[in-house]
Amino acid sequence: MPDFAEPLARLIQEVKRLPGIGQKSAQRIAFHVLRAPREDVDRLAAALRDVKDKLGLCARCNNISDAELCLYCRDPHRDPAKICVVEEPLNLIPIETTRTFNGLYHVLHGSISPLRGIGPEQLRIKELLARVQEGGTEEIILATNPTVEGEATAVYLARLLKPLGLKVTRIAMGIPVGSDLEYADEVTMSKSLENRREM
Amino acid sequence: MPDFAEPLARLIQEVKRLPGIGQKSAQRIAFHVLRAPREDVDRLAAALRDVKDKLGLCARCNNISDAELCLYCRDPHRDPAKICVVEEPLNLIPIETTRTFNGLYHVLHGSISPLRGIGPEQLRIKELLARVQEGGTEEIILATNPTVEGEATAVYLARLLKPLGLKVTRIAMGIPVGSDLEYADEVTMSKSLENRREM
Repeated sequence: MPDFAEPLARLIQEVKRLPGIGQKSAQRIAFHVLRAPREDVDRLAAALRDVKDKLGLCARCNNISDAELCLYCRDPHRDPAKICVVEEPLNLIPIETTRTFNGLYHVLHGSISPLRGIGPEQLRIKELLARVQEGGTEEIILATNPTVEGEATAVYLARLLKPLGLKVTRIAMGIPVGSDLEYADEVTMSKSLENRREM
Repeated sequence: MPDFAEPLARLIQEVKRLPGIGQKSAQRIAFHVLRAPREDVDRLAAALRDVKDKLGLCARCNNISDAELCLYCRDPHRDPAKICVVEEPLNLIPIETTRTFNGLYHVLHGSISPLRGIGPEQLRIKELLARVQEGGTEEIILATNPTVEGEATAVYLARLLKPLGLKVTRIAMGIPVGSDLEYADEVTMSKSLENRREM
């Protein structure tokens, strides 16, 4: 690795800690910062700090929020009878991008993983039960990830919630739209066959 | 695009302005920042500002520097008789990574581009001539990019420097080592043929 002037070397080091940023991207970003107008760099530095200072979790659904209730929970146009359960706040993005879901969310902040010592009590499951017990919920959509942990979490939640008389559904797993069967892995392909629907 | 709490939306916006960062990477980085320890975020913000506050250009070669002379210019083990001319400070990295060049640099801060209205007088060419006229230079290696602008800049500099009795060389263009001829573009392939060497 070539030598860089100290402040530049330090910035490269810090930028490399961000997800998806390797040595080369970090260098490009650091040199970009060096040339960027002072105001732009100040705005970025302030935005970084504000995210730590001004954001917390929604008191109802545990999504990221800059107020007591998040954007979705305080939107009167959303249907509170449907709750979509996700592992992380980031998981809301692909769902919102579809513009087809108009209910509310519940963020668990993780998934059940005996290997990493994470049990149901470390997730925001108590809070989900409390919401359901307030009444008004008709359907719980389990949108945890299609991984071993996400699947275990979905199974656990389904067992917990179905006895309460709720409709509990799980997002579909199968071949991605627009892809080729040739590239489907074995597990996805079996899921896709298993979940086949009559036409 | 889904809605984000304001500080998060602003951070995503600012991060997207960095080179090579699209919407998805910006989101991942912003959510990472949200979860990262406060000290890590403060260190990154400080590193960003320090790069603007503490760095300038080397008084001799115009490389990025935290002192009057850059790391290379103040290194007594480097050979001042060889000067490698590059367009941007970032271009030093691949050269230094080879560990085969032990001379000094000269950073032009751009290349001649009539289309973008950049002529020789906007580049650090006067400063290069002044260095050469101080004496002691034996070879100038032109390592401007293998683009139309980089090539024009190299030709311009060669015409200027050769009459001064210096050895002026240009880095070789050809097929990248380890790649396949199948993937070589026409221009690179012709350069590679043109610059063929006897074995």
